[in-house]
Amino acid sequence: MSELFTEMTVEELKKRKKLLQKRYDEFKAKGLKLDMSRGKPGADQLELSMGLNDIKSYISDGIDVRNYGVLDGIPACKKLFADLMGVSPENVIIGPNASLTLMFDYISQCFTHGAGDVPWCKLPEVKFLCPVPGYDRHFTILEHFGIKMINIEMKSDGPDMDSVEEYIKDPAVKGMICVPKYSNPQGITFSDGVVKRIASMKPAAKDFRIIWDNAYCVHDLVDDGDELLNIFDILPKYGNEDMVVEFCSTSKMTFPGAGVSALAASKNNIAAIKKRLNAQTISYDKMNQLRHVEFFGDVNGILAHMKKHAAIMKPKFDMVLRHLENELASKGIASWFTPKGGYFISLDVMEGCAKRVGELCKEAGVVLTSVGATYPYGHDEKDSNIRIAPSFPPVEELDLAAELLCICVQLACAEKLIG
Amino acid sequence: MSELFTEMTVEELKKRKKLLQKRYDEFKAKGLKLDMSRGKPGADQLELSMGLNDIKSYISDGIDVRNYGVLDGIPACKKLFADLMGVSPENVIIGPNASLTLMFDYISQCFTHGAGDVPWCKLPEVKFLCPVPGYDRHFTILEHFGIKMINIEMKSDGPDMDSVEEYIKDPAVKGMICVPKYSNPQGITFSDGVVKRIASMKPAAKDFRIIWDNAYCVHDLVDDGDELLNIFDILPKYGNEDMVVEFCSTSKMTFPGAGVSALAASKNNIAAIKKRLNAQTISYDKMNQLRHVEFFGDVNGILAHMKKHAAIMKPKFDMVLRHLENELASKGIASWFTPKGGYFISLDVMEGCAKRVGELCKEAGVVLTSVGATYPYGHDEKDSNIRIAPSFPPVEELDLAAELLCICVQLACAEKLIG
Repeated sequence: MSELFTEMTVEELKKRKKLLQKRYDEFKAKGLKLDMSRGKPGADQLELSMGLNDIKSYISDGIDVRNYGVLDGIPACKKLFADLMGVSPENVIIGPNASLTLMFDYISQCFTHGAGDVPWCKLPEVKFLCPVPGYDRHFTILEHFGIKMINIEMKSDGPDMDSVEEYIKDPAVKGMICVPKYSNPQGITFSDGVVKRIASMKPAAKDFRIIWDNAYCVHDLVDDGDELLNIFDILPKYGNEDMVVEFCSTSKMTFPGAGVSALAASKNNIAAIKKRLNAQTISYDKMNQLRHVEFFGDVNGILAHMKKHAAIMKPKFDMVLRHLENELASKGIASWFTPKGGYFISLDVMEGCAKRVGELCKEAGVVLTSVGATYPYGHDEKDSNIRIAPSFPPVEELDLAAELLCICVQLACAEKLIG
Repeated sequence: MSELFTEMTVEELKKRKKLLQKRYDEFKAKGLKLDMSRGKPGADQLELSMGLNDIKSYISDGIDVRNYGVLDGIPACKKLFADLMGVSPENVIIGPNASLTLMFDYISQCFTHGAGDVPWCKLPEVKFLCPVPGYDRHFTILEHFGIKMINIEMKSDGPDMDSVEEYIKDPAVKGMICVPKYSNPQGITFSDGVVKRIASMKPAAKDFRIIWDNAYCVHDLVDDGDELLNIFDILPKYGNEDMVVEFCSTSKMTFPGAGVSALAASKNNIAAIKKRLNAQTISYDKMNQLRHVEFFGDVNGILAHMKKHAAIMKPKFDMVLRHLENELASKGIASWFTPKGGYFISLDVMEGCAKRVGELCKEAGVVLTSVGATYPYGHDEKDSNIRIAPSFPPVEELDLAAELLCICVQLACAEKLIG
């Protein structure tokens, strides 16, 4: 008998469903309370950075970091992030505890003051391209500012560039927001070809801006992780230096609530951002900047530290992938990528079944990321995508949660096929 | 002979000027390099808070503060700031390392989303009332958003309320920004009468907002410091709960670059701010919140800590005031307040002389706050106000700087009167 659900008769499906229902009920009886909803590091990952608390220094390059001043970050911290992003320190601004805030503030700045001649708030309509599935919090920022989001299909090497190149002919399309390495949620890294095509774009809008959220720049799970082409090396060739602003942070290196964020941008963009920053703050938390500088030492220190994270994360990803492989492969009801880094596994189930999977999981005590959240306006029109966040639960809980998820996927699809 | 410069003959003034010039030249020869420009705490003040670095806790009320979440601040920190501001914790949001950023963000929110029905960016003109002299960074925020600033004269008990009540009849006047206790730079605390008049205002603009920057709420220099009426106790009487948003921070309690800020607001305003915050961040730095909670214990811990600051600050203020008294009193060329708290002494010199005083000081190696900065657009039309910031230099340097300042004031005024 074929394992393809789509080739089974209704009788066969009903029989299969009965077996699945039994397993599901047994799970439900366990009274589980597991959370695979957010990309939160686990407690053991947080322990890796407790050394930050031992750092007592408060002088860096002659600057007393306890006091006011140094708007764009202490030189040592700018150097660290410049090395991380492969740019010069003068192209770096150190931000607050979260790069999300830096991104929000940059969009807000474009809205109130513009990235070119006209503030976006003065325009009848502003549109952004959003590779999907994507990061829900990106969409929340854009929706907050009433920016119309346009879905762009993610392919295995990055956003569908034919589609992007078509949309940017519209001058109301002012930008794109994306995670170019280990994308959230699929874990896809943009290929060299895609990065080059992005860097060479000629959008109708002269103030087109790409929010290049490099959140997982060094977040490999394996030794031979993906390599992302440094877009800042290519932009000048096309006179597009001002088109991209890159963001990153230590949120998933040290402490998610108490990290350091940074952005990289062209000279023009840095000047415009500093102008706003000069009204917004006197400086961000320089003590935390210095803590991070001393804790890591240099960019090699970051890379060594990330290997410790990988050692904790890899078995969790493997656990989920093993269940997917064992229970869902060759059944024609689900597909997924095997990412080499990042924080998520993206599972696409049979169309019209994702919400039902979320409900079934929830009833049995496992919380997934709200189904639909990986799409703008929370609307996955195929009702197919499920984001799995394996980082937070301990591996033995993940074992249960992933098994349950696989049961729920099969149950929901069987239900759907039976009709 | 009268000491009043205004009653001296030109000959007498020339003679006096010659003596002053001699003293000035002697100072200049010393090659001083002193800074009385910004309200920066001195190094000895920063030492008072080094205990913050010893705090290793990371669990508060069951929350792991190292990880994501808790948008509006950990409960213990909300309680601490609620007690400080005399409001309920549900009316408090904990912010980033600087209250300036919270204020910028709130104005930005009014600009992009409004405080009522219409975002301010959609209006032809938005005006704000600014008691003067005032805080230059407030003016920088308003100018950044193109908000037209209207000067309101500060009287000895607060802003000129007759003038305020007249201006608020204009619906384009959307707010007022002020430091109600130990105002920057005069050190004036609004009287009970003024606070009540403010609380009972009926502005034409239904979305009128007062930025109540209570930066110096517990920053007394003396035991019998000023008492500011809690405006949140009075607002409900007039149905004006939504009119005021209060801001404060630990910037001048612990570390200016690495403190914790907070705001207090009505239920409606808290909901609106949280809505924006939900797009802007996952949480601010909760580890720093917990550090501050454990370091202070409770609001009494803050008050005890502030007494240590006062013990360092008081001799500095006394030193400056002694020089002003000895050299400038009864000469008819300068006036000042003797503040009971805050960070500044505001010196008003003969009209048309402040810029010249700044130049003379600078030439002799003493940097003052840019003359004019205490007025919107950097424009003090009387060219009279000088902000003195005594906190940063050690007391022996202050002795020299204050003497030089007094010489420069007399020199500039003598020059002016000689013509």
